[in-house]
Amino acid sequence: MDSKQQFLDKSSEAKEIFLPHLSADPVIFGFDNNELKVLLLKMNYRKQWMLPGGYIRKDEDLDEGIVRLLKERAGVAVSYLEEFGVFGKKNRSEFYFEDFDETLFQKQRFITIGFYALYNATTLHPVADEMSETCEWIYLSELPEIELAMDHREIIEKALLTLREKISIKPIGFNLLPEKFTLPELQKLYEAILGKELNRGNFYRKIKNLGILKKLDEQRRGGAYKAPDLYSFDEENYKKALENGLNNW
Amino acid sequence: MDSKQQFLDKSSEAKEIFLPHLSADPVIFGFDNNELKVLLLKMNYRKQWMLPGGYIRKDEDLDEGIVRLLKERAGVAVSYLEEFGVFGKKNRSEFYFEDFDETLFQKQRFITIGFYALYNATTLHPVADEMSETCEWIYLSELPEIELAMDHREIIEKALLTLREKISIKPIGFNLLPEKFTLPELQKLYEAILGKELNRGNFYRKIKNLGILKKLDEQRRGGAYKAPDLYSFDEENYKKALENGLNNW
Repeated sequence: MDSKQQFLDKSSEAKEIFLPHLSADPVIFGFDNNELKVLLLKMNYRKQWMLPGGYIRKDEDLDEGIVRLLKERAGVAVSYLEEFGVFGKKNRSEFYFEDFDETLFQKQRFITIGFYALYNATTLHPVADEMSETCEWIYLSELPEIELAMDHREIIEKALLTLREKISIKPIGFNLLPEKFTLPELQKLYEAILGKELNRGNFYRKIKNLGILKKLDEQRRGGAYKAPDLYSFDEENYKKALENGLNNW
Repeated sequence: MDSKQQFLDKSSEAKEIFLPHLSADPVIFGFDNNELKVLLLKMNYRKQWMLPGGYIRKDEDLDEGIVRLLKERAGVAVSYLEEFGVFGKKNRSEFYFEDFDETLFQKQRFITIGFYALYNATTLHPVADEMSETCEWIYLSELPEIELAMDHREIIEKALLTLREKISIKPIGFNLLPEKFTLPELQKLYEAILGKELNRGNFYRKIKNLGILKKLDEQRRGGAYKAPDLYSFDEENYKKALENGLNNW
């Protein structure tokens, strides 16, 4: 079907169902091959990459809406996302729909609310909706090469910045790493989020001081070097640290 | 004038000017007498306390809107506010306007965006708008005693929580303290934000390590004890720390 026609077909139903002027965009980060990636889709129309965002129903809470639309657009079930920013420039999406007239629901001014979540990329299997050619994980290192719709590059950058700030306050990694991991793997995750290399000794000391790790009586087998110790998160202390923060003062 | 009539008078103009379904609420924190306070107004209608919030014009950016409406409602000029949360429960304000019918602009469902800023309370002089009986600073310790409209208590609590998190990442105090201050005064500010007492030795050591303070060749005179040293913020290092964060990793 014609990709323009798909928008036109949705417009009048959208006016009935959704709040005008307000959209939501999920930034789902995954971690794989020591790199962060983000879940994006490419719509049939314009073939630009974008976040799997959408609109909020008149009869649902905002928190419900972001979970529903992520499921609808990307086929992934995520139970909680954290709000990290609101993007409200008046002309942020005006060029995207220039092929349409003002009666199109999707063409009106939208202030969009950004939400993020962190997941182990191997456990989420994206499925594109009918409006999209594909929905997949894209490494952050690939983003400079691809065309992103509207202000979605800025939205992803703000999400990453928020993640960098949060890592000073909250433990991170529970959803991103496999159940058992080595300290070098955890360090790679922190380095990927912070965008810089960390001193190994300092990192080990600080991360152990947080009290969120449990050393297992197992080693990672199969490497060429001495088998490194495996760790898992101490779930109770991890939760406490999530609630109370890492208490720098 | 009848306070209900004031709403009715505003409704049809509001429909022309403002985006529907979207509001913004500023939480302005001040610091005074070793305590945090927040800027609130009491509207003529219902006489409940509330944040000096309002609506966003169709023709302005969201960031412009929050600055404009704060000026209009509270008479204070604040150049920058930071977004900290979005409040999107579908029934968050439905009871507030129960005296009105559905045609009232103000009665529709609003998703509100929370912004905060920190100011030296002695430099901002609030002036109530025509819809309000008063607009003034209220100490956080007084909040349990007063009636707050809608979900504004939850909004203030989330702003305070955000401030507590930010204090681990960013320096705080530049706008809240007078230009020259003593270390005990700075510690009181940190304690007010964190809601707990801090060990003096640890606090002095950590705050000095941040490199954001400049010790002045002056002491606070007039007390009964040994005159304490005065400090000011090293503006350049403070700005750097704001941009780069306090770098815990």
